[in-house]
Amino acid sequence: MNETTPLPRHVPLVVATRGAAVESVHYGSIAVASATGSLVCSAGDVDFPVFTRSTLKPFQALPFVADGGPGRFGFSPEQIALMCASHSGEPRHVAAVADMLARVGCSERDLQCGSHAPLFYAASGIPVPPALPATPLHHNCSGKHAGFLAWCRLHDEPCETYLDADHPLQQAIRRALAGFLDCGENEFVAGTDGCGAPNYALPLARLAYAYARLAAPGEDAGPAADLGTLFNAMTAHPGMVSGERRGDLILMQGAPGDRVAKGGAEGVQALGIASRGIGIALKIADGAPRAVRVATYAVLEQLGLLPPDPRPLLQWRDAEIRNHAGVVTGRLMPVFRLG
Amino acid sequence: MNETTPLPRHVPLVVATRGAAVESVHYGSIAVASATGSLVCSAGDVDFPVFTRSTLKPFQALPFVADGGPGRFGFSPEQIALMCASHSGEPRHVAAVADMLARVGCSERDLQCGSHAPLFYAASGIPVPPALPATPLHHNCSGKHAGFLAWCRLHDEPCETYLDADHPLQQAIRRALAGFLDCGENEFVAGTDGCGAPNYALPLARLAYAYARLAAPGEDAGPAADLGTLFNAMTAHPGMVSGERRGDLILMQGAPGDRVAKGGAEGVQALGIASRGIGIALKIADGAPRAVRVATYAVLEQLGLLPPDPRPLLQWRDAEIRNHAGVVTGRLMPVFRLG
Repeated sequence: MNETTPLPRHVPLVVATRGAAVESVHYGSIAVASATGSLVCSAGDVDFPVFTRSTLKPFQALPFVADGGPGRFGFSPEQIALMCASHSGEPRHVAAVADMLARVGCSERDLQCGSHAPLFYAASGIPVPPALPATPLHHNCSGKHAGFLAWCRLHDEPCETYLDADHPLQQAIRRALAGFLDCGENEFVAGTDGCGAPNYALPLARLAYAYARLAAPGEDAGPAADLGTLFNAMTAHPGMVSGERRGDLILMQGAPGDRVAKGGAEGVQALGIASRGIGIALKIADGAPRAVRVATYAVLEQLGLLPPDPRPLLQWRDAEIRNHAGVVTGRLMPVFRLG
Repeated sequence: MNETTPLPRHVPLVVATRGAAVESVHYGSIAVASATGSLVCSAGDVDFPVFTRSTLKPFQALPFVADGGPGRFGFSPEQIALMCASHSGEPRHVAAVADMLARVGCSERDLQCGSHAPLFYAASGIPVPPALPATPLHHNCSGKHAGFLAWCRLHDEPCETYLDADHPLQQAIRRALAGFLDCGENEFVAGTDGCGAPNYALPLARLAYAYARLAAPGEDAGPAADLGTLFNAMTAHPGMVSGERRGDLILMQGAPGDRVAKGGAEGVQALGIASRGIGIALKIADGAPRAVRVATYAVLEQLGLLPPDPRPLLQWRDAEIRNHAGVVTGRLMPVFRLG
């Protein structure tokens, strides 16, 4: 990387003000696409590959669903939702993942996601207790990894190497993704996710299309039916996809059953809106969560998609910045117009 | 603010990679100026006003030094350094600030900076103890505020309103700043800092010039002598300006007595290099500390200013990004060339 490295042509999306002036700028790009693949509107660069991070999870669960895994092991809709989750490590999440592992004859020791303090604490503003046990079960990706292990059991493939890029599971994920995105597997830019799983970068326009497809009405069989199974589980149990006080839960609760919302690390946010037949994909160039929220609110507002009761989202609109004494010193404000 | 709001023309400075691809981009601008005010080199937009935040502290202490305050109250060079500090709330910092307050007949109760967990913990990677008393003395700006109160005592002005923009102290700061920057007081874009103090935005080129002046050889009397007093105190006691393991301390220890380094919130970094007669000012558009460090290292490298022993800074060069399992998933890398 140097001064000649090709870079995305992001544009200013959100500013932080101080007094009456602009202090900081968050750049980024936004794509809105239909379920037929056409770009509805956008801002910035929708062609540069963006690592999908956790927005990829529903599609990483696709092979397991397509292969009849949930029925075979008796996974509940809540557990299907957990396979697509960045969960908070709440007791309900941890218990449901442990049950998934038991159902497939695995245990916490088989999870290769590592561990971190449950997201519950940051979301609730509660300090992490020093003696807290942060096990792999508490990792926000443990449901995805339990689903990975379940796929291995379903196909009698090795559990020890399930994160290797050439493991049959990871090949099946790439094949499924390429199939329903109608592109070649070699088009995916690859990297390793925060949980050790292979992850892929997609042009924002294509990620938006993927979420439009996820939210499109399902059919009786085939990929659309499998995506429908995932969409229905996620929208019926948004608390299993996210956690108390978290953004994705708030977004999905705003229009129950109609919207799937999934954030990813480094400033990625995806939404699928069934009633409008569209998908939305957003990347904040620098990864700042504060800008993701403000930009997401502005996108919903510009598309006429604010929920009937927008109150839970109002803190994302012109969000106040306060100093240590509690005084408002500035605001976060959108500065883009989708076109 | 909307899509027609004038914005700085920042450029990509640092990227975060994942695998072999660019994942995230941090935009920003950099100015390098001489002590005579000429721009030596730059990247991005050096004319758009940038809130100076804590890089303003030496100049906020200037009126007190110019008026003979340190001698009047017997402030040590360590305490002069503390007036310019974003300190870590280490015991030595807290004790020295308490002593400053006692010397001017004030107490902790007169500090209006609010309180936050001492920066020591974040810098050391130690969890903040739940029962920790975070008093205003521990606030990283408490030395600056003690200096503010000292100025009020020196001039028999009210201590209760020392943060008001029209308080004689704040007027004196603006006058001093305008005087040595050779500009009008009404050119300053004003806002409120995180500690409640009035803060001002300056074009990056002018902030770089201010630090070149701060690091320029002092004279026997006048503003240059007062700036020399501040520079000498800061460079002789960098641990009082910053704290253990903190960036400014590492930068100043790299070339003792030659360099003053001061970071500010929202991605601001300033340096003054006495031996080269230059000042450097850098703004990361989104405020991310990870990008400040990588960009600062690259600036020093491009200017031939890496310290004789660069090892303490090497973690800022092509900094590794690791996931929860400790695996390197990418790097932070500079993508600019000063010109």
